Order: sequence, then C-alpha cells, then structure tokens
Amino acid sequence: MAENKAEKPLGGVMDKVVSLAKRRGFIFQSSEIYGGLNSCWDYGPLGVLLKNNVKKAWWFENVQTRLDMCGLDAAILMHPQVWQASGHVNCFQDPMVDCKVCHKRFRGDDINSTVCPECGGELTEARQFNLMFKTFMGPVEDASAVVYMRPETAQGIFVNFKNVATSMRKKLPFGIAQIGKSFRNEITPGKFTFRTREFEQMEIEYFCRPEEAEKHFDYWVESRFAWYIKHGIKKENLRLRAHEKDELAHYAKACKDIEYAFPWGWSELEGIASRGDYDLTCHQNSSKENLQYFDEEKNEHFLPHVIEPSAGADRATLAFLADAYDEEEVPNDKGKKDVRVVLHFAKEIAPIKVAVLPLSKKQNLMDICEKIYADVSKICSCDYDDRGSIGKRYRRQDEVGTLYCVTVDFETLNDNAVTIRYRDSMKQDRISIDKLPTWVSENLK
Amino acid sequence: MAENKAEKPLGGVMDKVVSLAKRRGFIFQSSEIYGGLNSCWDYGPLGVLLKNNVKKAWWFENVQTRLDMCGLDAAILMHPQVWQASGHVNCFQDPMVDCKVCHKRFRGDDINSTVCPECGGELTEARQFNLMFKTFMGPVEDASAVVYMRPETAQGIFVNFKNVATSMRKKLPFGIAQIGKSFRNEITPGKFTFRTREFEQMEIEYFCRPEEAEKHFDYWVESRFAWYIKHGIKKENLRLRAHEKDELAHYAKACKDIEYAFPWGWSELEGIASRGDYDLTCHQNSSKENLQYFDEEKNEHFLPHVIEPSAGADRATLAFLADAYDEEEVPNDKGKKDVRVVLHFAKEIAPIKVAVLPLSKKQNLMDICEKIYADVSKICSCDYDDRGSIGKRYRRQDEVGTLYCVTVDFETLNDNAVTIRYRDSMKQDRISIDKLPTWVSENLK
Repeated sequence: MAENKAEKPLGGVMDKVVSLAKRRGFIFQSSEIYGGLNSCWDYGPLGVLLKNNVKKAWWFENVQTRLDMCGLDAAILMHPQVWQASGHVNCFQDPMVDCKVCHKRFRGDDINSTVCPECGGELTEARQFNLMFKTFMGPVEDASAVVYMRPETAQGIFVNFKNVATSMRKKLPFGIAQIGKSFRNEITPGKFTFRTREFEQMEIEYFCRPEEAEKHFDYWVESRFAWYIKHGIKKENLRLRAHEKDELAHYAKACKDIEYAFPWGWSELEGIASRGDYDLTCHQNSSKENLQYFDEEKNEHFLPHVIEPSAGADRATLAFLADAYDEEEVPNDKGKKDVRVVLHFAKEIAPIKVAVLPLSKKQNLMDICEKIYADVSKICSCDYDDRGSIGKRYRRQDEVGTLYCVTVDFETLNDNAVTIRYRDSMKQDRISIDKLPTWVSENLK
Repeated sequence: MAENKAEKPLGGVMDKVVSLAKRRGFIFQSSEIYGGLNSCWDYGPLGVLLKNNVKKAWWFENVQTRLDMCGLDAAILMHPQVWQASGHVNCFQDPMVDCKVCHKRFRGDDINSTVCPECGGELTEARQFNLMFKTFMGPVEDASAVVYMRPETAQGIFVNFKNVATSMRKKLPFGIAQIGKSFRNEITPGKFTFRTREFEQMEIEYFCRPEEAEKHFDYWVESRFAWYIKHGIKKENLRLRAHEKDELAHYAKACKDIEYAFPWGWSELEGIASRGDYDLTCHQNSSKENLQYFDEEKNEHFLPHVIEPSAGADRATLAFLADAYDEEEVPNDKGKKDVRVVLHFAKEIAPIKVAVLPLSKKQNLMDICEKIYADVSKICSCDYDDRGSIGKRYRRQDEVGTLYCVTVDFETLNDNAVTIRYRDSMKQDRISIDKLPTWVSENLK
C-alpha cells in the first residue's frame, strides 16, 4: 500500500513521523483505497490509543479532579438559529481567490501579491466563503431544512449553560468542558493532521464574575501551558503568543495562543480567550431566554464572563507524536552502532504501556506470556510479540513508544520471574511474575 | 426551564427517566433555548460520564483485554465512492408517504393502511428517500463536491482492513473495533434517545476464514448478550431474536438482534450479522485494490468472512438508565415510609462512584472533605455536596446512582475515620481516612 500522502515535504522530523504513522498503525489517509479524501485522516490501532490518552489526560486534569468543572457532550447538529445568534452564519468566512491560469485556490488573507504565488497568473477577485458545512434535515432540500455541522463545540456549551448550572446546582466560578468533533470547510487544509476539515476539539468555557475574568484568564493560560509540558512536550518547543490588538475579535478582551515549533513554523495548539459576556448576550437576545446567573450572596443577577481555553485534540496528538520522535545511536549485538527510532512518550500518553515477549516460540513460554497478558491487560494497554529476534522486537516496541518490555525466558521456568526492559534507559530489571501487576500499577501512577 | 420534550408519553418508567435525565443533568434537549432540534439530544455532566463508562466497558472487554482485537477511529467524512461501493447511495433508503390532509409524514413500511393512521386523510404515493445526510466539500455546491456524513462506522473499518492488517501484522481471526458518531436522516425519529438522526455506534468487524464464520458468529452472539447482563441489565429484559429469512439483507448469512424490553416493546440494542465477504468484495471491485488476506500456513489468498456485532452507544446508555431505575419504600427519620428513587447502576457504569459529604458546613469538616476529594478523585469520578440535610443528600446521590457516600462527621476529628454508606443496601461502615483510597480502588475492581 502507498505511503501516507503529504502534499509536499513538511520538513524537520515531520516527514519521518508521517511515514512512521502509516507504517505502524497510527494514522492512515482516509479512504486511501479510493485515492484518499483531501485533508481527512483515520486513526489506526495505535493512533486511537494515543489520541484517547491525550483526551483522557485532558479530561483527568480539567474535569475529573476538579470540583469547579463538569463535562458535556452536545450534539454536532444544532438548531440553525444557534449559528445565526453566534455570528457564524454572517461572519464565519474566509476570503477566497483562484488563479485563472493554474486554477490553484488560496485564502485571500494568506497571499500578499496580486498574482498567483505558484505560477504568476492572474487572480480572481476575492469572494467571501462561509466555512460551515451545511446539510438538510428531512427530505426537502430547501432553506428551511438547512442545518450546519458545528464548526466549534463551544456553542453547545453556551446554549446549555443554564441547564448545566441548574441541574448541577453550580456556583460561580465554574467551567463546562467538552470533547468532540467539529467541521470547517477550510479553503486550504493541509500539513498532515494539523489543518483538517474534520477535527476534534477539547474546549472549556469557564464562567466567572466580570471583575474576576482577568485573574481566571491568567490562571488558565498558565495552567494549560503547563499541561503540555507535564505530558512530555519539550519546553523549548512551546511558546505563548499574545494576540495583537488587530487580531482580536471585536468582543474579545484578550487572547493568547499556545504555539508549538512545528517544522513549518510556530503554529497554534490552543487559544485561550477572554470573551466577556459576548456569547451569552447573543444567545439571550436571540432566544429571549433569560440566561442570567443569580448570585445569592450578592443578591445580583448578571451574565457571567467567560474564559475559553480551546485546544485541538488532533494538533495536540500530532505535537506529542513529533516531539516524542528521536533517533539514537545504540550499540548492536556485533559491537557496532545502530540507529534506533524511539518515541519518548510520557507514560500517560504512550499508546502501549507493556509488551509481553516470549524469548522463543516454545509453548511453555507462550503459555506464561498468555497468563501475563491476561493479568496486565486488565490494568493497561498491552501488546504481545513473538516474531523475530528479541533485539528486533525491542526496536519495534521503541518505535511506537512502549514503556516496558516484559520478556519471558527459559530462566522464567525456574525462577518464576521476568525481565523488565525500560524504553528510555534500555536498562533491565528482574521481577517476580506475582509482583508484576502491582509493579505495573505503581509505575503507571 | 422546560421539561425534556417527549412527543407523547413513552410508558412504563420511561417518562420518569426522561424527566430525571433533564433534572439531574443526564440528557438535555439539543438547542433547547431555541425550541430544540427534533431528535437531537445533548449529554449533560452526568450523561457524559454515564455514556463514557458504557463506551469504556465495551472497549475494555472487546479491545483492551483481547489480543485478537484492535481499535480504529476513522473520519466521519469519507470518499463518496465508499458509499457507492457499499450500496448506500443506491439502496440506503426508506419509502416515505405524507398525509395530504394533516401533512404528517410516515415511513411507508410502518403503516399498512392506504389512509392516514392519524386523521384518515389521503396519502401520497410512497417515494424513496435516501437516509444519508449530504454536504459539499469545498466552495462549489455541485454533484462533484458531494460528500456524505457516514451512516455507519462499519465502512471505515472495511476500507482500512488492509492498512490495519499490514501495520499491525495481524493473523486471522482478528477484529477491528470502532466507536464513533453516525448520522441518518430518519423519516420518523423519536422515543427520546432511542431513534435519533445523530447517534454513536460501537461496532466490531471480526475477520475470519470462511469455514469458521458460523463458529465465530455463535461466539459473538453469546459474548455480546452476556456483556449487557454483566453490566447490569436484568436478564428478563433482554432477548435474542433471529432475523427471519425475508428480513435478511441479500448478502447476509445470518443475523440476530439483542433486544431490550422498552416500554414501547422489544427493540434492538445491537445486531450481530454474518456478512460473508460481501463488503470486502464490494470495495475490492470498486477500488481495484487487492484486499485479499494471505494465509501463510495454508499458502492461500482469499477475502476473509466477517462477523459484525454492531451496537448503539446511545441505546445501550438508555437501556442501562431505564433498567437501573427503581423506586423503593424506605423508612424516614420520623419512622414513616418514604419513596426513594435509586439508579442501581453496575459499578463500572455508575457515573459517580463516590460522593464526599461533610455532616455540617463547619470549616474543619469541609477541609477534610477537600483533602479526601483531592485523593479519591484521582482514582474515580467523585462528587461533593454540602447542601441540605444528610438524609436529603443521600437521596440526591441515590437518584443518580452514586455507589458510595463518604460522610465526614464530628467524630472524624477524633478518630480520623469516615462513614461509608452503600447505595443499594444503605448499610454503613466506618473506615480510616488513610485506608480510603485503597478501599475505593479495591471496591471498584
């Protein structure tokens, strides 16, 4: 089967990452057997584990362990008036120009020349193009049946603000968090999974008293930045960038992006925006429902202000993958040097935690492996591999970032112990099989 | 805010479940402040925990702990040729009739009379209506730009069969599992979250040698049936129903539905189908890619046969919710009888495992609670509640199925111990705070 298609080389380690992603089951091009669907990608067996771990780590820190946060999972299809009220129907658009000669398409705000940057040909006038995918609910394809595929999960939170506050009896400040798919009909998608038309967001809307918005904004910027580092991104590959005044939406009080040093330049992983009461005001005006919060202590009704940390799950996954990638010189069996490819994932992020390897395909060793797999796979995601030399199998596990290799050898038959080999140091320990499940649980904490 | 809207009473306990779902933050009507969007629902803070637990329990049993299974997360938008090849463009349609008098719409195969079942009016001829939502990728809204929102996750698995088999070096028999959203433009959606236009599937395609298909079909029927019971559905509310010959798709060799006794009648939670090599054949013919598997031992190339256990995550969630619902007579403080509403969720399914309750709002008790919450919320989903009498708080936790209430009282200040109160038996134990995290971990196994 073909390699993952990239429009052109992406630079740095990224082209190796794209190739590894395909070869080892992280990311496949969508509908590849039909030539692929531009900008859509499928997560393979290891990719879904990786991305699930990213989402889980986000949920754990931002929802599960916080009393002031709760989750939500709103539908992708929403009432079209939501997108009227939010401004998306009228304003969520990009200027688009085409080259009259080579027919390439560009975002008007991406190019500064008046001729085609590819061939020098004449360009069309810029036309506004709305980025929402639209479809029709019910059998009649007319304006009254139009619904949109949500371009962001945020509005699902705003329209549910009162339902959540009431049913959960929440007091300010509190946040609502959501993970889910969004869709944008991008004019120029690309750069592997970085800019895709279908993507997954991890969004928080944090509601607070207006006078506390700045404090919470600063808190969330710091907290979200620290999250990426805590989960393995190198500090030197991350930076914060405050939006310039002319970049800010008219309602936004402040916005900072968390950017990653992708090979094509610093690019946004997450934006933290201070949105005031803009969104709740829009929906209150449009729906005529009273969305005010009642502060019992101060005996006051008002619309809370909102801080929005909005992260891309696919972008985070790509950054974790690229940042984990390394090629190291290591000695081989023959005393010479090999290069090993290793993904240095943090333990929460690694798609496979433990690989169980019988030294040979003898049935008695494989039986022990089966028993170990049955026990340990109840605790974490495991692999089993009995094909090839043990050295080759270690390399295969390194290449996908497996934390621990557990090898069952002939000595195991005597001492009921196994060898644990660590991915990063490549050191080995011997441990009793009886203690292995507890050892794994403890080491994954 | 309004109650969750049901078109008409659903019967049994379901109307109480619908009301509780709204009141306690399980399920809200989508875009409710705009009058709702027909047949779309949002999962609230407890709903997302509940549904995530359902998905996690499915993944744990069918992917994480099985060497012969791996996961996948394919995109919702796929190449349109996928749906040509699969037959969905030409055949995924329902006959639709309208009443010329009251303008109600019906599925042609749902009604047997030649007049409107509601008003007796004249009906239109039946027209075929394709159930796929379509949209346009890119700015031009013409036939060449049409893409569909997938009506099932299954095809994402079939088109990735070779990529998965190759990258994961899988040998038959093995399965690929996927959880994800699908969309069907149903003519008559309804019955709360049972039949919705946007829904989530949990699908497995299990690939095997043709002569072993029957054996694996029987295995999966039994295994999937047992899963629902193991996770709390009462056996008497589940049944298996084999499809009649005339119900079977032309390519299907066998199909059995797992049905739940909803108040409106036995209805499908999951279908297990023996699909032969139909799907891989379609895609091989249409894509011209060789999708054959090579059996090294038998030196044979062939298209594997497929067993497909296809479950609805929303339907399973609704069944777990309805089946857990109970009203019990319990003695109150005054020696009289109260009715308590309790959700008897299985421990893996319960959205909240532990609630931490200070007996009073004294700061020293609340400080201890905060410490307990910080420790225990690292292990599982927790709640904290300091409002109202302790009896009322127990009832509130019962009503959402919380497994254990941990009460911090004045005695705690002396003995550093707390009371654990069990949801089902309402019995109470005293346990040292130091031992609580371990106790919780052990009891959730």
